[in-house]
Formats: sequence, C-alpha cells, structure tokens
Amino acid sequence: MTKSANAPVRHATMRERNLAVVLEHIARHQPVTRARLAELTGFTKTTVSNLVGLLEGAGLVRGGAPVHEGERGRPGVGVSVRGDGAAGLGLEVNVDYLAACVLDLGKRVRYRHVLSTDHRGREPGAVLAALSALAAEAVSAVAAQGLAVAGAAVALPGLLDREEGVVRHAPNLGWTDVPVTGAPGLDLALPTEYDNEANLAALGELWFGGGAGLGDFVHVSGEIGIGAGIVVDGRVFRGAHGFAGELGHLVADPAGPPCSCGGRGCLEQVAGQEAILRAAGLPVAGPGTAPDDPVRTLAGRLDAGDPAARDAVDRAGRALGGALASVVNLIDPDTVVLGGVFSPLAAWIRPPIEAVLAGGSGSLRRGAPPVEVSGLAEGAAVLGAAGLVIERVIADPALLL
Amino acid sequence: MTKSANAPVRHATMRERNLAVVLEHIARHQPVTRARLAELTGFTKTTVSNLVGLLEGAGLVRGGAPVHEGERGRPGVGVSVRGDGAAGLGLEVNVDYLAACVLDLGKRVRYRHVLSTDHRGREPGAVLAALSALAAEAVSAVAAQGLAVAGAAVALPGLLDREEGVVRHAPNLGWTDVPVTGAPGLDLALPTEYDNEANLAALGELWFGGGAGLGDFVHVSGEIGIGAGIVVDGRVFRGAHGFAGELGHLVADPAGPPCSCGGRGCLEQVAGQEAILRAAGLPVAGPGTAPDDPVRTLAGRLDAGDPAARDAVDRAGRALGGALASVVNLIDPDTVVLGGVFSPLAAWIRPPIEAVLAGGSGSLRRGAPPVEVSGLAEGAAVLGAAGLVIERVIADPALLL
Repeated sequence: MTKSANAPVRHATMRERNLAVVLEHIARHQPVTRARLAELTGFTKTTVSNLVGLLEGAGLVRGGAPVHEGERGRPGVGVSVRGDGAAGLGLEVNVDYLAACVLDLGKRVRYRHVLSTDHRGREPGAVLAALSALAAEAVSAVAAQGLAVAGAAVALPGLLDREEGVVRHAPNLGWTDVPVTGAPGLDLALPTEYDNEANLAALGELWFGGGAGLGDFVHVSGEIGIGAGIVVDGRVFRGAHGFAGELGHLVADPAGPPCSCGGRGCLEQVAGQEAILRAAGLPVAGPGTAPDDPVRTLAGRLDAGDPAARDAVDRAGRALGGALASVVNLIDPDTVVLGGVFSPLAAWIRPPIEAVLAGGSGSLRRGAPPVEVSGLAEGAAVLGAAGLVIERVIADPALLL
Repeated sequence: MTKSANAPVRHATMRERNLAVVLEHIARHQPVTRARLAELTGFTKTTVSNLVGLLEGAGLVRGGAPVHEGERGRPGVGVSVRGDGAAGLGLEVNVDYLAACVLDLGKRVRYRHVLSTDHRGREPGAVLAALSALAAEAVSAVAAQGLAVAGAAVALPGLLDREEGVVRHAPNLGWTDVPVTGAPGLDLALPTEYDNEANLAALGELWFGGGAGLGDFVHVSGEIGIGAGIVVDGRVFRGAHGFAGELGHLVADPAGPPCSCGGRGCLEQVAGQEAILRAAGLPVAGPGTAPDDPVRTLAGRLDAGDPAARDAVDRAGRALGGALASVVNLIDPDTVVLGGVFSPLAAWIRPPIEAVLAGGSGSLRRGAPPVEVSGLAEGAAVLGAAGLVIERVIADPALLL
C-alpha cells in the first residue's frame, strides 16, 4: 500500500474492479437494495448479487435493513457497509507528540491516543519504536472490540519521498534522509503508507470537517512547524516532487531569525506555536504537559486581555495573513481553513489574518476568500491518515478477500 | 468556442470523436499510413479509411508521402496534416502593445504583427476596435496565402471571467467589468475565446518553447505587469475562479509604492518593466517607440556597466527571486521559466533571482529548481493564443466539416 494517494487504483481483474464499484455505491447510498445497486452500477441483478455475496462473505457488508424505495410495494432488503468489517489505523509523528487513531469501515472513531513527547534531538529509531508500540497498543485495543486493522498510514512533519518511504528533510525533527519503510524500530506488520502531515490534515478536514462545502481549499496546519494542504477537485495538490504546500517556509521577515530549514525569517519562526508562546512570554512546554497545554494557557491569557499575549498573536496573525495573501494570489482557493493550534486561537488570530489577507489579495479580486476554522484542530492529520486507509479498502476491497 | 482550455471536448457523436482521434494520431505520427493508424487507434482499416476520407474532403489532411514502415516490403502511402487546411488567429491586448499572429494547421507561423500603442487611459471600446482592425488585417493577409482562419483566441492582461467573456479586473489597463464577448468595437466574426495573458504565454512556452522538457513549470510573463502561468501535467492550473498565478501582486515590499490593484508594494511595482526603467533613470517609452525599445536601451546600459541600471535590475531580480521562492515552496515546480522582458535581461537579472531563490527555497529542498530563459520573450502569449485555436481544431475537426 505504498501507491500514491492520488494515483488511480489499478485492479488486476474485472471482478476486482466490479467489487470496488459495488462497495463504493453501498458506502454512498446505504442501506441500498440489490435492485437499486443494479440500476446504479449498470450491472445485471445476478452480477450484483454475486458481488454482494463476495463482500458479505468477506464481512465487509451486511444485509437486513428494510428499505422502502419508491412509493409503493413491499420494502426491499437493504445492504450496508459493516462497520466492524475492517479498520484503518492512522498514526502521526509530530514534533511534540505521537498520535494514533483507528476508524472502522463506517468511518467511526473506535480508538484515539495522543502521547505528549518532545522528539527534537531524539534518534529517529527511538521515535519510530515508540510509534510502533503505540500502533501495537491501538491494534490490540480494537481487536478487543472485534476489529481487524487492514492497514496503516503515517503522518510525518516533513518533505517525504513517498515512493521510497524516506523522510528527505523534516527540519523541526532534525531528520534528513531517514528511511521509514522497514526502518529498524518501526515494525507495523501492516500494509503501511506515509504522507506529509499537512496533506493528511487537509484530507482529514475534507472527510471529517468542512468537506465538500469548502470547495477548493487550503488547510493550514499550525503546529511547531506550519504546513499547508492544498485540496483541488477533492484531491491533494502535491507539486512535481510532492513538496508543495510548504507554507511555513515562506519568508515573513527577511531580517527575522534563522530557521531550522536553513533559511531566515520563515513564517514558522514568527507564527509557529513556539514562536508565539515565546513572544507572549510563556514557556513553550513544561515537563509532562500535554501538547495542547501551553496553547490552552495562551488562550487563557488572551481571554484575560494580557497585552504581551495579544501582541504576539496579532503579530503572528499579520505574518500568516501576508503568507496567505501569496497563497490566494498564486493558487486562488475558494476557502482558507485554519487548523492545528490556530483553531483554539481563532478568536484572536483570525482578525489580523483577515485584515492583511483583504489588503494583500482582496483588492485585486474584490474580496478575499473566507477564512474558516477547523473543528478538528490538531486531530486532523491522524484522522486523515486513518481515513485514507478506509478509502483504500473501499477502493480495492479485493485486498481483503 | 468559449469552452475552457482545460475542459474535455464534448463530441456530439461517435463519428466526431473518432475523427478527432484519427486527426490527433496523424498530427503526432505524420506521415503515417492508414494501416498504422488502424493499429494506433484500434479502429478497423475500413473505419480509418472512411475517417481519413472525411478529413481529406475537409482539406485538413493530405496523402501522398511514401512511408517505409518496418524493414521489408513496398512503401505505404502516408497521410499528413495539411498545413493550409485551417489557420488559428492569436491576438493580444497588452498594456503598451497589440499583437496578432496566425498559425497554420501545421503550427507554422504565417503572419505576425505587433503594434506599439499605450492603452492606459483609453476607452476599452477604442482598444477593442483597434484589435478588431488588426485581426481583420491578419485574416485578409493570410487569405492571400490561401489560408482560412478557423477561430481566434485573445490574450488579456487581467483577471477574466472566461465563461461570461468579461474582464473582471485588469489593473494596468484600468479596466473593470469590461465585456469582451460581443463588445462594441470587437467584431471578429470568428469563434473566439479569451484567456489571461500569462496563461497563454505559458502555453506558448509549452508548445513552441521548452516544451515537455520543462516538466511542471511556472512561466513568468514580465511586461508592465507581471503574471505567472502555472503548467501542471501539460495543463494550465487555474485555481477555483481562474485567478491563479497572480505573481505580480505578491507583496515584495510592504512599505513600497501603492499598486494599481489597490494593494501596496506589489512585485510589479519593483520588478515590472516600467519600475525597472524608472529605477535605472530611463524613460519608460518615447513617442512612436516600439514596445521593446526601452528594454533594448536598458540592456545597452547594463552591457556598458551603468551602475544605476545594474542596481535597478539587481533589486528587481532580488524581489522576483523572493516571490519565486514562495512559488517554489507552495507549488513545487520542476522548472521556472523567465519570459517577456526578462528574456532579454536574463544575463543580468537571472543571477540575483537564483541567489535569492536558493536561499528561500533551496535549503529546504537541497536545491532550488533551475531557472530557464524563454526564447519566445514577449511573443509567447500571442503564439499560445494561436496555438490554442489549432489545438481546438485538432481536438474537434468536426467543427470544420
């Protein structure tokens, strides 16, 4: 399962393709009768019954729910996706936490775990071993619920070579050319793929947040680093080498502090979580604190009208607004979505963002795009990762037959 | 012919689709035998012969060239696109010139005309009437060569609503909500479409310049304004509203001069043609000068080592490099191409661009993308416009039957 998230699924046989078509229609229209599935797919009723039989045999769908289709007649027997038919494991390595999330085939969250731990200066092998342990814990916790995990996807905060399974450069972790596929320490024993954290957070927002109502959107992942996931026509726009959306390394202040990427005055040095906390005179993290604790402290100060906190957030918002004006001028999205730590800070950071964005891109267009706030906050990437696994299963159920 | 340049062509009938398939294969493999066309298309030899007959009847292809396919046997009769079978008219309205170009079906240039004239402060109707006159001149000039123009495409320097045929905002022309489809003054009597100048310049570069070797690229159109055409997988990336690629309105200097877009310190106020000329102490244009005259004067000064000219171009190059670093961080192209007036200035402007680009995006990626120089310079947009018409004819020859 190392294929590209945007690549069309290649089915070895016609039957595999037809299974996928039927499962996708069941997922979209459930509960749905075999007769309606025949209409939707253009297959004969016999073909539909055979395919549904295979999916039932694999435990991916179940019949039983009575369905009234049309106005007259007896109810038919509806087929639905069986939530416990398979599960997807989402994992995330971020700078100051690890996260795991399991979704069932009905895309319900069945397990979540966030582990606060600072990874800067730690050996990649040790971090990946901790991730493996978290994954094993998740797999056994959902096994107790009767769920079998079909695959995993891992969100990582850096530039990835997804084909090779190598983290090329994750400046905030200090990782360069770290192999993750089959790496010592990482022993998932599951089909596993890897993607950039910002891309998976954008998919999380697409599938579990604002969804299709956002149109083409740019989702801003605010963590210690800042990334953007660009969604065009329901897909992540990746660029020629998979390195698109590096919003955090747009230059916010050419005279600003050096950045871990090797540049100077990058946006994340002004508007990243720790940059804001420092400017507000707050500790970036205490021993044993949960990852969102310092941000909660900051929100409390902002609420109380603390001038240093307000200035820090205002300055960050202006820098972010300037960078987003460049995004709008170059990429022209329908919507901008603030995620990660910017979600809980939205009440204070959104106004300066909107003010600068309106001046920097709105006058040309007569109106900048709306700036929405993600309800998923820092949970978006790990949800997107788990959702990606479920999408893979539905797009190619033959993998589980 | 107002459909989107990226929209799939919709064919009313199977025969129309098949005609397009055959013509595309002839254009790509010419001269090519009917037997080989049958292999390439999967059609029977009879179907191929019928379709080629229709295309021959319409004057779009011709037979006759002997072709040796394989190692043995007699040569077959090859079919080729008939250059004089149809022609496409490209037109351009820019801030200080109008241009027309006619390509034949073999994409050879059969006519070119550039008219130097400053459009700022002129009524849109008067500008469009001048464009009409230029178009009529082009059509009659190629008619004398036996060429019939099948359609036109017009490049405009601003934000367009292409569906409605309205220029929403062209700040350098001072146009707001100017209808161009069926506008008084514009009487082309040809199927006509409209597109942003930067997008058509990028297509010009794709079809007549660096081509497929550029990979995914961003083409920078340097004129009085600055625009970018973003090409991904051989298509123009347009954004949600068709307003992507507005490179000239990235903020280069927040304390810089006001811009005609309503913003402040936009890149084109620092690195646009007139901004450079003014900073170099040169007149922006003299009465009756050709549009490239002031730039030629500037190149002469640069060549002679004039310090004011060198400083002006260095400052522009640094600003452009900074904006391009944002492009690379967000869009991740394989190649950056400098076009328009930056082509003749490349020897002096490319070094500062590369230096800033390397610092602003190269350290994260271990190497910024190469910065190439377009050989088409200011001619790219009008070539792209004419090329678009030829692409339309080849994609839907039934329009001419």
